[in-house]
Amino acid sequence: MKVELGGYRGPALQALLKAGVKVEDEIRITGDGLTYEGILVPRSEYGDEEHVVIKLRNGYNIGVRVTASTMVERLGAGAKLTFKPPRIREAGKDLPRVSILSTGGTIASRVDYRTGAVTPAFSASDLYSVVPELADIAVIDTEVLFSIFSEDMTPRHWTKVAEAAAKHIEAGVDGLVVAHGTDTMGYTAAALSFALQNLPVPLILVGAQRSPDRPSSDAALNLVGAVKAAAQAPFAEVAVAMHAETSDEAVALHRGTKVRKCHTSRRDTFKSINADPIALVKPDVLTMLTQGYRSRDPERSLQLKPKFDEKVVLVKHYPGFNPDIIEGFVDLGYHGLILEGTGLGHVASGCLKALKHAYDRGVYVGMTSQCLWGRVDMYVYYTGRDLMAYGVVPLEDMLPETALVKLMWVLGQTEDYGEVKRLMLTNIAGEFSPRTSYRWVS
Amino acid sequence: MKVELGGYRGPALQALLKAGVKVEDEIRITGDGLTYEGILVPRSEYGDEEHVVIKLRNGYNIGVRVTASTMVERLGAGAKLTFKPPRIREAGKDLPRVSILSTGGTIASRVDYRTGAVTPAFSASDLYSVVPELADIAVIDTEVLFSIFSEDMTPRHWTKVAEAAAKHIEAGVDGLVVAHGTDTMGYTAAALSFALQNLPVPLILVGAQRSPDRPSSDAALNLVGAVKAAAQAPFAEVAVAMHAETSDEAVALHRGTKVRKCHTSRRDTFKSINADPIALVKPDVLTMLTQGYRSRDPERSLQLKPKFDEKVVLVKHYPGFNPDIIEGFVDLGYHGLILEGTGLGHVASGCLKALKHAYDRGVYVGMTSQCLWGRVDMYVYYTGRDLMAYGVVPLEDMLPETALVKLMWVLGQTEDYGEVKRLMLTNIAGEFSPRTSYRWVS
Repeated sequence: MKVELGGYRGPALQALLKAGVKVEDEIRITGDGLTYEGILVPRSEYGDEEHVVIKLRNGYNIGVRVTASTMVERLGAGAKLTFKPPRIREAGKDLPRVSILSTGGTIASRVDYRTGAVTPAFSASDLYSVVPELADIAVIDTEVLFSIFSEDMTPRHWTKVAEAAAKHIEAGVDGLVVAHGTDTMGYTAAALSFALQNLPVPLILVGAQRSPDRPSSDAALNLVGAVKAAAQAPFAEVAVAMHAETSDEAVALHRGTKVRKCHTSRRDTFKSINADPIALVKPDVLTMLTQGYRSRDPERSLQLKPKFDEKVVLVKHYPGFNPDIIEGFVDLGYHGLILEGTGLGHVASGCLKALKHAYDRGVYVGMTSQCLWGRVDMYVYYTGRDLMAYGVVPLEDMLPETALVKLMWVLGQTEDYGEVKRLMLTNIAGEFSPRTSYRWVS
Repeated sequence: MKVELGGYRGPALQALLKAGVKVEDEIRITGDGLTYEGILVPRSEYGDEEHVVIKLRNGYNIGVRVTASTMVERLGAGAKLTFKPPRIREAGKDLPRVSILSTGGTIASRVDYRTGAVTPAFSASDLYSVVPELADIAVIDTEVLFSIFSEDMTPRHWTKVAEAAAKHIEAGVDGLVVAHGTDTMGYTAAALSFALQNLPVPLILVGAQRSPDRPSSDAALNLVGAVKAAAQAPFAEVAVAMHAETSDEAVALHRGTKVRKCHTSRRDTFKSINADPIALVKPDVLTMLTQGYRSRDPERSLQLKPKFDEKVVLVKHYPGFNPDIIEGFVDLGYHGLILEGTGLGHVASGCLKALKHAYDRGVYVGMTSQCLWGRVDMYVYYTGRDLMAYGVVPLEDMLPETALVKLMWVLGQTEDYGEVKRLMLTNIAGEFSPRTSYRWVS
C-alpha cells in the first residue's frame, strides 16, 4: 500500500488533507510570519500530531508546528524538484562535518576508576565509543581548548574560544559544538553571540548536569542533540543545547543571549528567559519554535570581534545597599556598571549622587532587573526618570548576565561613550525581544 | 430537599460518600501528614472537585485537598459539638480585628487627578470606600507608617515596621496586614519573618502591580485576600499575598522567607522558590497547600527581635569577577558577605585568597546560588570543598536575598562568629526547605 500521508495524525493530518498534498510533494507552509518550502516527508510512528516535517532544499529536515492559522500549499510533485540532494552517508563519507571544541566541564569528563581523577575524554574516537550514534550524524573533528571548571572561565577564555571557532568555521565545517561546564555556559553563550557575528553555520554549546559515567547522565542526549543541530539546523546562531525536560526525550536549543541556568541540579536547568527556545531536537526531528533567525548560509563571511574589557562590574541592588559601593567602582577605574535593580529598574534614591559621579566620569551605567522576567521601564515612576537624567540607561528585557557580557564586549570595541550607548541599545544578537511577549516564557 | 453533601463533586464527593458523612457532621481529614478536625460545610456551586471545606473549632473555614491517600472519618453529628461558635457579624461588631500598616507603594496610593500627585489612601474609611467587601471580613484599624517607594526601604525601616506590628499584636488584633511596594516586598517579608518570632497571629504583606485607580488593578483582590488571611487563616506566619495567576480568581500566600518578585510587570509576579505557597485564597475558601506551619494561637507570646546590621553585602559572582572586590569589602569593615555563586555554589578559584582574608578577619561568608532554584552542594567538586576549608558556608536552598536579610538580622543579634555560624544554619522561619523537593516549585 502506497503511503500517501504516512505517519501523520490529528491537526497535522487535517492540514495536509485540506491542502490536498501527499508525501514527497513539494509544499509551502506559512504560519506565524514564517514560510518554509520543501518536500513533505513521512513521520515516524512516534511523531506527535502537531508537526509537519519537510526536507528543505538544502537537505535538512525540519518540523513545522501546525496551528489554526497555518496554511499549507502544494507547489508540485517532488519528482520535478531541482533541489540539492541531501548528503547521504556512504560508508562514513559525505556526512556533515562538525567540530567539537572542548573547554572542560562535566560533559567533557570521565572518571578514571583506577586513580579517581577526572580526565577529559574528548578525542573523536573517545566520543564515538561513548556515544556511537554520533557516527550516523556527522564526521566529527575534536579539539581540546582547555580543561577547566566553568566557574574559572574568564573573558580571556571567551576570546580564545571565539578565535578557535573562527578557525574551524573558516576551514569549512558545517557546524560547531562547544562542550562547556554548565555553571557559566550562559555567560559564554552570550559572549560568543557578540564575538562571532555574521555566522554562516550554527555554534551549539553543550553541557551536562551528570557526568557521562553515571547512569542518569544527560551527556549523551545533549551531545547528540547538539551535534544534530550543528549538522542539520536551518539556523546559523549561537545556542545552548540541554535537556528540555527531565525525561530523556528532547533537547532544547536556547538562544545564546536569552538563556540562563535556573536550577542547581535538574537536567532541564537551562531556560530561555523572555523568549521561546529557538528549536527542539527529538530523535526524529528538529522543530523550529521561533520566527526570526539567521539562516544557515555557508557562503556568508564570519566577522570575528573577540575583544572584551574586564573593567566592568555587575552590581545587585538591595535594601541597605551602600551607594559608596558605586563610587568605589568609579574611583577604581571601572569603565562600566550593570545594575541589577528592583522591579521595573529602580535603586534607592540615595544612589543618585553616586550615579551622577559615574556619569560625570564617563562611566556607562546600564539598568536591568533582578526580577529576570519582564522588561525594565523607567518611565513609570519619577524615580526612574531621575535615574535616566543621571545617565542610567534602561536595557529593555536583557538579562543582567547578558548585559554584563555585552558591556564587556562593547567596551572592547570602542571607548567612545556615545558609541557605547548606541551599541548597547542596538539589537546585535537577539538580546532584546520585541515588545509583544507578556507570557511567562521559561 | 435536605442538602446532604451540598455542592461537592468529583474526588471530594467520593471521599465523603466513602466515609458516610454529611454536611454539618463533625469529621476528621488526614492526609500528607496533617490532620484537620471540624464541621463539614457545604460548598458553593463554584467550588472545585478536589477540596473539602471544614469549619475548624476556632470558627475559621479552610479547604483541604483530597488525594488518593486522604482519609475522611466521621466523628459525630455536628449538633453534639461543643466548639466555640465562629464570630458572626452583627451590625459590624464581633468580626475579627485586623490592623493594616501602610509603608507606601502602589497599593497604598491614589492619584489625585487635580494635582497629578500620588497620595496615600489609607484611612479605614478610605479603604472601605475603595474595597467595600472588607467590611464583611474584619473590623479594620489602619496606621500609616511611611509613604515611600519600596526601593527606598532600608533595614531601619524593617525595624520600625516590626516594632509597630508588635504594638498592634500586643493590643490583641486577630491579624496584621502590611501594605508595601512590590519592589522590595520579598526582602521585608524575610526581615519580618526573623524579627517577629513566635507570632500568635498571621502577618500578611500585600502589594499591587497596578494602582487602585486603574481598571486592571490587582489592589482590591490582593487586599481582600490579605485581610481574609489575616482575619481567618489557621497559621501564624509572615506571608506575602499577591495574585496567584493573571486572572482575578485567587491570591497566593507565599512564606516570607521563600518568596521572590520574578516579573517586572505581571500581576502574578511573586513566586515561592523551592517551596509551595502556604495557602491559596479564593472568594469562598482558604486552602492550605503546605504541611508544617505554626498554628494561630492568640495566647502565644510574641518575641520581638528587630535589630539588623547594615554592614553586610550581597556579591554576585560572574566570569571576570575581580577578587579584589571581596578584599575591598573586608577592608572597608563589612561584617558579613553573601555570595551569589554559580551552580551548586562556586566562585573562580582565583577568589580563594580573598576569601581566606575574609575568614582570617572574622568576616562571615555564606554561599547561595544565582540559579535561585535548587540547593547549593559544595561537596560535589573539590573546588567546593576548598571554599568550605576557607570558611565559606553553604546555605542550602536559601534564596540569596533571604540569606542577605538573615545575615543582617543574625549580626544584629550577636557578634560572636561561632554563634553567627550556628544561627545562619538554624531553620528559624522556614528559610530552609527539607531535602525532598526536586520539583520546579514556582
